Amino acid sequence: MKIYGFPLSPFVRKVVVAVKEKGLDAELVPSNPMQPDEEFAAASPFHKIPAFRDGDFTIADSTAIVTYLEAKYPEPALLPAAPEARARAVWFEEVADTVLTPAGSPIVLNRFLRPKLFGTEGDEAAALAAEEALTKPLAYLEDAVSGEWLDGAFSVGDIAVASVIRTLGYTGWELDASAYPQLSAWFGRVQQREGWKAAVEIEKAIFAAAMGG
Amino acid sequence: MKIYGFPLSPFVRKVVVAVKEKGLDAELVPSNPMQPDEEFAAASPFHKIPAFRDGDFTIADSTAIVTYLEAKYPEPALLPAAPEARARAVWFEEVADTVLTPAGSPIVLNRFLRPKLFGTEGDEAAALAAEEALTKPLAYLEDAVSGEWLDGAFSVGDIAVASVIRTLGYTGWELDASAYPQLSAWFGRVQQREGWKAAVEIEKAIFAAAMGG
Repeated sequence: MKIYGFPLSPFVRKVVVAVKEKGLDAELVPSNPMQPDEEFAAASPFHKIPAFRDGDFTIADSTAIVTYLEAKYPEPALLPAAPEARARAVWFEEVADTVLTPAGSPIVLNRFLRPKLFGTEGDEAAALAAEEALTKPLAYLEDAVSGEWLDGAFSVGDIAVASVIRTLGYTGWELDASAYPQLSAWFGRVQQREGWKAAVEIEKAIFAAAMGG
Repeated sequence: MKIYGFPLSPFVRKVVVAVKEKGLDAELVPSNPMQPDEEFAAASPFHKIPAFRDGDFTIADSTAIVTYLEAKYPEPALLPAAPEARARAVWFEEVADTVLTPAGSPIVLNRFLRPKLFGTEGDEAAALAAEEALTKPLAYLEDAVSGEWLDGAFSVGDIAVASVIRTLGYTGWELDASAYPQLSAWFGRVQQREGWKAAVEIEKAIFAAAMGG
């Protein structure tokens, strides 16, 4: 299996963690959406990351990839079987992908990508506005944590939300444990999972290589 | 069952069609994300449409709602069982939601919402740029049509793509049958489905009521 993308993207990380949670192996192939090579472009018609290959089968989009993994390698399950719980797992995945990620992306752009990678000045006002925009979804997630995970069993919802929080961590932003004690404890539990730790090792190796290390 | 939202949204239409394709009944409750009433807000924490209720169970986000419908009312299936086909159905759903919808939304904003609903002037240059932005995903979909539907069996992918094309139709935009003959024929087939026709009847009634008709 191959995953195409950069692990700074929470969407790419979601897929890497899902693969590892299922006890599978995949090569993470650094792929640039702006300069797509042929192999990546063949798997991702719109050059979005992540893209994915398993033998002859290629597919792009993190939600579609996780759908494939879940159907082809069902154990351990990342989507509960009960309709209500299954829908809530997808809901938390969508909160991560369509609420948290857009809210937080000005922080990543202005405190990490621009100053650290593009060598341009970041817009600190935009980053501060994004910090404010994150408070509503984070407060919602703080209240949502029920038991060990976001909703009953560990699911793709936990993976997706934790993946966004880790990306924000690259900017120096930290989840405030005094404002979000339940969510902080939950994030600590996610980080202790073997699947997460295995994905982090892959991510660290990619970043080290990108820095010439 | 209740669906909260306005059927101009392709995301709302996707859910209405999915409900009807499954032979179920749901009330479409017009709900304004900007002025959320209590019942809608209880189902949609971030006030996005669509939201959904089935008895005591509430959930928001069209993908999460369709996940629930599919798990709770599995026949007829809107997601194929085979991993590859299942992933491709979600892929086409994501092409509709994350590629086609953002590409086409300046057309809806500038040729329909602004001039017809908000009473302000539309930005025709932005609409023309959006027409250009739509050509790549439409050409991709033209090539994707295989047999009767986008990918084998009729799926949520067909519903999602057709829902965006119908929303664009409100602006006067038309799918160019000479440029996209396969896709145009496919859209004709979607429009002949009983589930689609039932959803269109609900949509027309809502629009007529909104216009005071």
